[in-house]
Amino acid sequence: MSQALVVLSGGQDSTTCLYWALQRFGVGQIEAVTFDYGQRHRRELDCAARVAARAGAPQTVLPINTFAALGGNALIDAGIPVQDGVNAQTRLPNTFVPGRNLIFLTFAAAFAYPRGIRHLVTGVAQTDYSGYPDCRQATLQTLEQALRLGMEYEITIHAPLMFKSKADTVRLASELGALPALADTHTCYNGVYPPCGECPSCQLRARGFAEAGLVDPLLALNVV
Amino acid sequence: MSQALVVLSGGQDSTTCLYWALQRFGVGQIEAVTFDYGQRHRRELDCAARVAARAGAPQTVLPINTFAALGGNALIDAGIPVQDGVNAQTRLPNTFVPGRNLIFLTFAAAFAYPRGIRHLVTGVAQTDYSGYPDCRQATLQTLEQALRLGMEYEITIHAPLMFKSKADTVRLASELGALPALADTHTCYNGVYPPCGECPSCQLRARGFAEAGLVDPLLALNVV
Repeated sequence: MSQALVVLSGGQDSTTCLYWALQRFGVGQIEAVTFDYGQRHRRELDCAARVAARAGAPQTVLPINTFAALGGNALIDAGIPVQDGVNAQTRLPNTFVPGRNLIFLTFAAAFAYPRGIRHLVTGVAQTDYSGYPDCRQATLQTLEQALRLGMEYEITIHAPLMFKSKADTVRLASELGALPALADTHTCYNGVYPPCGECPSCQLRARGFAEAGLVDPLLALNVV
Repeated sequence: MSQALVVLSGGQDSTTCLYWALQRFGVGQIEAVTFDYGQRHRRELDCAARVAARAGAPQTVLPINTFAALGGNALIDAGIPVQDGVNAQTRLPNTFVPGRNLIFLTFAAAFAYPRGIRHLVTGVAQTDYSGYPDCRQATLQTLEQALRLGMEYEITIHAPLMFKSKADTVRLASELGALPALADTHTCYNGVYPPCGECPSCQLRARGFAEAGLVDPLLALNVV
């Protein structure tokens, strides 16, 4: 029986969290869940599988077809450009899927429950949250309480990157020996490989590595 | 723009809530969302559509394929008998889908958000909750707070049946003029029509009507 379940997207942050969980809970004590929610960049799913395999963590992919049915979001709907700015009503980026992390963590808890897993680990961060309110500490604390009440089950949500800058996250990855795994991750909002280097997501990642004084293994591999 | 969104399952309680919402928010001010989550009794979806149409409420059916992928539950998995008692680990009925109402309400909120709908209505009740912790008042209050924080959006969850017995719910349906609509609803856990009359769900419904001194229109229609 595993102790912890990591919500693994195939990105830099959740990959770093997978290694954080390996160190915290021990080899053989963690597994990963990845959501196939119709993300426009299917490459993320391949990245998540490779990251989990490299770390020796059993991985389960759970489908969620509901976000695509809700529609209207640039992360899912290929007809909506990512960099079209913010939603006029909400003033949030058009990559905001309302409640996405609430749904991910609730399904993760539903997966953990029959398996007796008491710890969920997520890579969300308040520091670089880009306006996403479901990535904030207060949201996660309240959701944790809702999950405990709603499932009558003592479960804890860990968000080890919550207050870290991207540079600190890179440093943590380095300390945890997770840098090689970051070569398998996916960050670019435009879904291209090698990464476009120009979208906000690529730029945020690049600044993090630059400030930490480390080379991004994803880019290092792509030097021709 | 509607004011309220009713989570409509096609059952007695959510149908009563639809009429509660009609009275509270007014004709033309409500709509319904129904989740197609792989319920083994597809008849529920037909019931929900008929109930919504009769009430003149626009209905959206949203798919959720995740519960079926999680597996191991009698309400979804046709291979598991409903009346096999309780789960050995959790001591909850094997019809308990961990976090089901948390997921339903979170997706309902995600649907409501871009539409500017500020009120969610659910038919869950603490009184007859059959051991389901996600039907309790404390759970809904905490979830409401998580939704408000996680979407940065003032939304209110209404559960008008929360502390009502089944008999009181029947009386409320009568007062609201919802009794005819109850002929279109579905209750039986065994999914048969006319209802089996023997499963816990049929018996609970029958006791409610008996205590309220009213005839269940679902059964009245089935007198041969």
